[in-house]
Amino acid sequence: MTTHSPTIGIIGGGQLARMMIEAATPLDLDIRLLAASPDDGAARIWPRTTIGSPDDPIAVAAFAAACDVITFDHELVPESVLIALEATNVRLAPSAQTLRIAQNKQKQRELFAAFGLPQPRFQLATTMNTVQTAGADIGFPLILKAARGGYDGRGVWAIAGPNDLMEVAQGPLDQGIVVIIEERVAIERELAVMVARDEQGTTTVLPTVETIQIDGICRQITYRADGDHAQATAIAHSVADAVGLTGIMAVELFQTAAGLLINEIATRPHNSGHGTIEALACSQFAQHLRAVAGLPAGSTSALAPGAVTVNILGGSDGSDPRDRLHLVRDGNVHVHLYGKVARAGRKLGHVTLIGDDLADLSERAWHAVELLTNEKRPEMRR
Amino acid sequence: MTTHSPTIGIIGGGQLARMMIEAATPLDLDIRLLAASPDDGAARIWPRTTIGSPDDPIAVAAFAAACDVITFDHELVPESVLIALEATNVRLAPSAQTLRIAQNKQKQRELFAAFGLPQPRFQLATTMNTVQTAGADIGFPLILKAARGGYDGRGVWAIAGPNDLMEVAQGPLDQGIVVIIEERVAIERELAVMVARDEQGTTTVLPTVETIQIDGICRQITYRADGDHAQATAIAHSVADAVGLTGIMAVELFQTAAGLLINEIATRPHNSGHGTIEALACSQFAQHLRAVAGLPAGSTSALAPGAVTVNILGGSDGSDPRDRLHLVRDGNVHVHLYGKVARAGRKLGHVTLIGDDLADLSERAWHAVELLTNEKRPEMRR
Repeated sequence: MTTHSPTIGIIGGGQLARMMIEAATPLDLDIRLLAASPDDGAARIWPRTTIGSPDDPIAVAAFAAACDVITFDHELVPESVLIALEATNVRLAPSAQTLRIAQNKQKQRELFAAFGLPQPRFQLATTMNTVQTAGADIGFPLILKAARGGYDGRGVWAIAGPNDLMEVAQGPLDQGIVVIIEERVAIERELAVMVARDEQGTTTVLPTVETIQIDGICRQITYRADGDHAQATAIAHSVADAVGLTGIMAVELFQTAAGLLINEIATRPHNSGHGTIEALACSQFAQHLRAVAGLPAGSTSALAPGAVTVNILGGSDGSDPRDRLHLVRDGNVHVHLYGKVARAGRKLGHVTLIGDDLADLSERAWHAVELLTNEKRPEMRR
Repeated sequence: MTTHSPTIGIIGGGQLARMMIEAATPLDLDIRLLAASPDDGAARIWPRTTIGSPDDPIAVAAFAAACDVITFDHELVPESVLIALEATNVRLAPSAQTLRIAQNKQKQRELFAAFGLPQPRFQLATTMNTVQTAGADIGFPLILKAARGGYDGRGVWAIAGPNDLMEVAQGPLDQGIVVIIEERVAIERELAVMVARDEQGTTTVLPTVETIQIDGICRQITYRADGDHAQATAIAHSVADAVGLTGIMAVELFQTAAGLLINEIATRPHNSGHGTIEALACSQFAQHLRAVAGLPAGSTSALAPGAVTVNILGGSDGSDPRDRLHLVRDGNVHVHLYGKVARAGRKLGHVTLIGDDLADLSERAWHAVELLTNEKRPEMRR
């Protein structure tokens, strides 16, 4: 518990940092930002920005010296930066240990196994021989993952058979990266749950959402206040304790006939939680900063029976959503743009609608995204 | 209607500009700020800030040259600045003509009379003789107002009798300021209503609120979604048209046995609308910017059956609310701090709670303000 407002350093200038800053200003929190470029989404909206590489240990350590606590808009913090930060006296939220777990799917799987948390069957392999044996044990089709280095679907492969497995596994193994061979579970739905945890270990779980990915990229997130949040909530509490979290994290889950299984985690605000800005009394960004700053948790009360968030991915003709805001005449569409230059396929923002009828909200959200990007919506499949 | 995102210049760096900027960032609107000091509340959260006096015509004209449209965090724009701005090609929202009305209570009263809008009986006076006659006509006790120069209770006097009247009227008359002698109506409640209007003349009225002032300073604002908003809404539409508004304005009203009467107006976001940040789908600040930028109006849907906002006035011991945020353990309290140095009596921020039971919300809001300011709440009177 701090009695004075701490200086919070945010490392990385992407949209998560940007939305943290948006949540910080009403509380007048003392925020400093380290961003690679003044054109980064967060840097464009924050005066107390230092320009420097978030991957450079020297730049990060110099930045951290003026802060009481450091947090991150991404979990892929290089080991050299973590070591440099640990050599300072500054508090990290999340801690270096938590980040090392978040960066490594092997550590996650082993940790969750030790805590008895539900997850797909898996085996680890460091050689082609053990890959072959593990593949046969787990059974085809299966999922192959690199223990580190991937996000947004990178570093994860759907494997049909043994030849496929051997071919794909060669890449990571050649780089000395452990691979994980996991059962391919029959996924009914993909879910995600955000959980915040303060330095005293008090956890606050936000309502579970359903996510829909297309080509490994999250495109739509839906939430119902009256949904069944019990099992996901219990898992989220345990995962937050297991990784020793400070701040907020996402736990991505598979809903299967056998119940919920943990897919992966991200120890930061997360795309699946963007709808909390409108749908909950306290957004994921405000919850994160509250935990980081040592403030009491915000309320998880729902402001609406449901919410739908759809990501804005840059359209193929390079249309800039900033120039197309006037086309969205539905006054209940909450548009969030991240201050990025428009490029095809780039995540430029999201829209959220809150209300009761999820099908209607989804239709209107996608319509707004079509208008903003000048691009037809993709086929939706579960 | 703009087809590209206009560059919006905000003149003045106070809390209204600050909350406009908070509303602008999710839309990635292109905002420039002119502030007197880098320590101004809005300047502290905005990188694209020019430091210069909002009262200096040369500084303002130079600032405006880089903008497509100019708006203001206050309506007391000096005439010299309005003339300088009118000499440029930049669009003003609100217009210079609207601001001249907003600055002058005589013009307001005459305009509302011409539009047949309900207001207290009044007479104008420019000499001591006409003051005396008007006082006798209106009857005592009465209200004396200076036609220009006042806000937050300044420039308005409660007058008991003729001697009092002559003594107080002397001041403004000596400065060549017209005085307004108004009947002292029996006020049941003080209300306020926010109305936004775009350049095409489309008006959007927000729900009516009740305000409670203490010593001429607004302290608490309450709102009920199921309240009787009809008459205030009709008045607000007419007033917005009468003053030729672009942007948002507050219409302050007296509720009397004879119905609603217009007290005064403020052609900008207003303290009485701060609860809209949480209580409505689109806040007064977002509505203002949407009208200024030529974007379609946001929704006025209520997110809650009621809301209570209480202002944070600096406590007598100079306690800084930023250092006391951890004391507020009620996770449903939305704290808004304006980035100001704490001083006794200074408006430092506000808190809002939304929900159903206004008495409970008010109790909790005042409790939070007590904690943040280390100051007991004042006696509440209507």
